Amino acid sequence: MADHNAMDSAASADRAVALTEALIARASVTPSDAGCQSQIAAHLESAGFTIDWLPRGEVTNLLATRGQSGPLLLFVGHTDVVPPGPAADWQSPPFAPTRRDGYLYGRGSADMKTSVAAFVTACETLAATPSATDGLRIAIALTSDEEGPAQDGIRAIAPVIADRLGTIDWCLVGEPSSQSTLGDTIRVGRRGSLSGEITVTGRQGHVAYPDQADNPLHRLTPVLAELVNVQWDTGTDEFPPTQLQVTGIDTDTDAGNVIPGRASARFNLRYSPATTAEALQQRIAQTLDAHAPTAAIDWHHSAVPFASDAGPLRQAVIDVIAAQTGAAPIANTAGGTSDGRFIAPLGAEVVEFGPVNQSIHQVDEHVALAAIGQLTEAYEAIIRQLGRSAPLPD
Amino acid sequence: MADHNAMDSAASADRAVALTEALIARASVTPSDAGCQSQIAAHLESAGFTIDWLPRGEVTNLLATRGQSGPLLLFVGHTDVVPPGPAADWQSPPFAPTRRDGYLYGRGSADMKTSVAAFVTACETLAATPSATDGLRIAIALTSDEEGPAQDGIRAIAPVIADRLGTIDWCLVGEPSSQSTLGDTIRVGRRGSLSGEITVTGRQGHVAYPDQADNPLHRLTPVLAELVNVQWDTGTDEFPPTQLQVTGIDTDTDAGNVIPGRASARFNLRYSPATTAEALQQRIAQTLDAHAPTAAIDWHHSAVPFASDAGPLRQAVIDVIAAQTGAAPIANTAGGTSDGRFIAPLGAEVVEFGPVNQSIHQVDEHVALAAIGQLTEAYEAIIRQLGRSAPLPD
Repeated sequence: MADHNAMDSAASADRAVALTEALIARASVTPSDAGCQSQIAAHLESAGFTIDWLPRGEVTNLLATRGQSGPLLLFVGHTDVVPPGPAADWQSPPFAPTRRDGYLYGRGSADMKTSVAAFVTACETLAATPSATDGLRIAIALTSDEEGPAQDGIRAIAPVIADRLGTIDWCLVGEPSSQSTLGDTIRVGRRGSLSGEITVTGRQGHVAYPDQADNPLHRLTPVLAELVNVQWDTGTDEFPPTQLQVTGIDTDTDAGNVIPGRASARFNLRYSPATTAEALQQRIAQTLDAHAPTAAIDWHHSAVPFASDAGPLRQAVIDVIAAQTGAAPIANTAGGTSDGRFIAPLGAEVVEFGPVNQSIHQVDEHVALAAIGQLTEAYEAIIRQLGRSAPLPD
Repeated sequence: MADHNAMDSAASADRAVALTEALIARASVTPSDAGCQSQIAAHLESAGFTIDWLPRGEVTNLLATRGQSGPLLLFVGHTDVVPPGPAADWQSPPFAPTRRDGYLYGRGSADMKTSVAAFVTACETLAATPSATDGLRIAIALTSDEEGPAQDGIRAIAPVIADRLGTIDWCLVGEPSSQSTLGDTIRVGRRGSLSGEITVTGRQGHVAYPDQADNPLHRLTPVLAELVNVQWDTGTDEFPPTQLQVTGIDTDTDAGNVIPGRASARFNLRYSPATTAEALQQRIAQTLDAHAPTAAIDWHHSAVPFASDAGPLRQAVIDVIAAQTGAAPIANTAGGTSDGRFIAPLGAEVVEFGPVNQSIHQVDEHVALAAIGQLTEAYEAIIRQLGRSAPLPD
């Protein structure tokens, strides 16, 4: 039996690697899906899933479901990737999946075609032993708009998913959560993201005649000096304190002897549930009132924070990782935003677990070849554990 | 006699306008003189001046002298102009002198070909009545490097002028000192100019992972917020307080989701003789030590301040302007730098008196046609008054 299981694992890993490679070979830069989801749908249909296509504008969205009753596990993933940048900067072409020194290279290898291939492969394996998941409903939602505006993807179809499937008990997001080795870190929530651009209008003039000018940088810099020292909150048990980062300062002139007429500063806040976007905006408005009352500010609120309490899904993920690696993962809320923020408000317990994220959005993006099989096994084991906890069907 | 004088004035004004137009037609963008000084030299030789050419590198410098004994009046001017920018932005071509609605348009019309033509024309008129200036030596120093680096112009030849001519009693600089109408403002000194660029090096990173980055803007903005509020000094009787102006802030990235790795700020100080460049640098180094101790700073010290006490030259300029306009000029130390800073240390009393400066360094630079004749008359009257105060030659 041990030998047989090992052979199954090897076969499963090989299939997951092959699917990952096939997906990398499709240049699915947002919002293009480049046929990824059709190829995946063929696999899922063979494994007994029903496919619903939910396109929105240029964006391809797929909802696959299997099982008629029982608690629902929803896997959320994306098939789009960020642009590769100059192909010449890559050691091998970004859309030619290439095995080198134990790694698989290619745009999307870590973020997140490996996760998608691993979960699909796990579902195929489980379909061959149906009793394992008889008490569970499994759904897979994929989009080609996670890396882009994220308007026509999971945000847009979340209400449809809820409408068709009812209560979502558990949501597993395949984002690359791991820091150094697969499974060292999982995410159980994400911070909110609020961006702003402050523009101060003054009066341009020659640097030798400051009395005839009004230097907007002289009102903007005290604003920024205050903002970078504000303690916004102290975070929560699972969230680090809210942080503001100034990302750039621009002026309308670039000459050493000219006082600019307009200056602007861009900043971003990653914020914890200990505060709200409204409270942050109010606090910043106070600073502007004090130092630059005529300044204008443009806000872009791209994500509210979400947090998931510990539940059966987190327990299953931790148990499986501990069994695989010998150590429980760190559960945190770091990183950017993810589509989990659109599912959490529906009441689902959300956990993100995927490959090492060190090379994402960079040239020579890669994933360890061994990690592909390991993640596939982990996803399969997580589904099995959730299935064991589910009531048997009537 | 009245009629005769009026005719003389008209003839003098016409000659000054003609010479101004001829100089504007020469596209003498720094360091090019474009033949301006050769044309001027021909006028001055006819008026009894001796011409010395003092070229330095690409720069053309002329020293013209007349008179063997008596106190020395040195006129300092420049024939170079700043670039015109896109010619299409001008109502008439920048190097085609054009009369329109009582004004003469063209690059250099105000800064400072009118002054040069006016002084040369005044000297020609006086040469026809030599007794008026028998007790006076007159010299004219011209350069084609005032608007540029100002290294190979008056700075370079000031020691030669001093060596050849001995004590310089009075120095009249033709820079456009007037604010609204000719003669409303003269300069009796200039502030110093000290520029700096502060560079803070941090560590670039994704805005969602601030703990893995080190935002240089967060150390630079407190530095700037402090510097823009420093009271450097309270000025002197003739100098306004020292002022610092931040002219620009740059970062090495321009993406909203990236914490920059390096940030720099450029600033300029116009400073009074109540302080020194060394004291200012020391004070700024203290601020850096407090907020950004690893920051680097590049200094560019382009001018030390100079001030001239009231003397016979200032009195002559004030008397002549009061007689012409009915009001004494304001004597201040405002504005940029001028070549007067290289003559003042030689012990000369320095006064700057020239056209209205509102359009200098801009498109459609212009001078009132009437002001050209008026300035010519004023220069002539100033020379006459100084000549009357000079002892008669042996």
